[in-house]
Amino acid sequence: MEFKSPMPCVDIIIEIDHSIVIIERKHEPLGFALPGGFVDPWESIEHAAIREAKEETLLDVELYDFLYTYSDPKRDKRLHTISSVFIAKAKGSPRGADDAKKAFLVPINDLLKYEYAFDHKRIISDYIRYKEKGIRPNPKEFL
Amino acid sequence: MEFKSPMPCVDIIIEIDHSIVIIERKHEPLGFALPGGFVDPWESIEHAAIREAKEETLLDVELYDFLYTYSDPKRDKRLHTISSVFIAKAKGSPRGADDAKKAFLVPINDLLKYEYAFDHKRIISDYIRYKEKGIRPNPKEFL
Repeated sequence: MEFKSPMPCVDIIIEIDHSIVIIERKHEPLGFALPGGFVDPWESIEHAAIREAKEETLLDVELYDFLYTYSDPKRDKRLHTISSVFIAKAKGSPRGADDAKKAFLVPINDLLKYEYAFDHKRIISDYIRYKEKGIRPNPKEFL
Repeated sequence: MEFKSPMPCVDIIIEIDHSIVIIERKHEPLGFALPGGFVDPWESIEHAAIREAKEETLLDVELYDFLYTYSDPKRDKRLHTISSVFIAKAKGSPRGADDAKKAFLVPINDLLKYEYAFDHKRIISDYIRYKEKGIRPNPKEFL
């Protein structure tokens, strides 16, 4: 347990019609995930989200809402990451690039049929609850 | 511009009746601020918020809402920090401790009469708008 600050990152829930964009990861941990990545030095989280969405899916996204910031030290086995999660809209079709081997659309109703890397199934569940019931993630749920 | 990841931190808006807790900082930048501080390695942001509130105000807080995560690279002149801001309730009277020279209550209606360190005036304005109108900070406002 060396003293090393947690690493800020972002993940983006990109809506296209009634589907969201899921990627297949090129690097460990392999599997499906939301597009996202680390925040660069001197970069805001909003700019990081737009940049990472473009790099991994080739989409130009419009951020329109903020879901929550996920920081459970167990959410990433490699190191402690703290991810701010945005909700965005886009048009067109995603194509996997950079750290994403593939990028594809999954209808919102089918999202929970799959398994995901990191805590992304939790994030996706929170997103669906928010869309269906208007209930946002609450800090009490993380204590 | 060396490659150094931004530092995650937390700030806490602590409500006691119709006032919130403001501290006077012991270290640079001096001045008034919300209680808060850096997230420790392997610590969740929720635990960091409860810990920092206790250290600086001696209050036991109950986190009940999340405002936004503020990451403008200019928000702190010393280094790039990314702060997740919680809204909490507490009982009793705050007392300044640790990095806080003083801690005191300011009625919500008087909050914007003061100047604050970092981007805390912006955060407090966003909080007041949220409490009065139900409008949360939106990512578009940070682009």
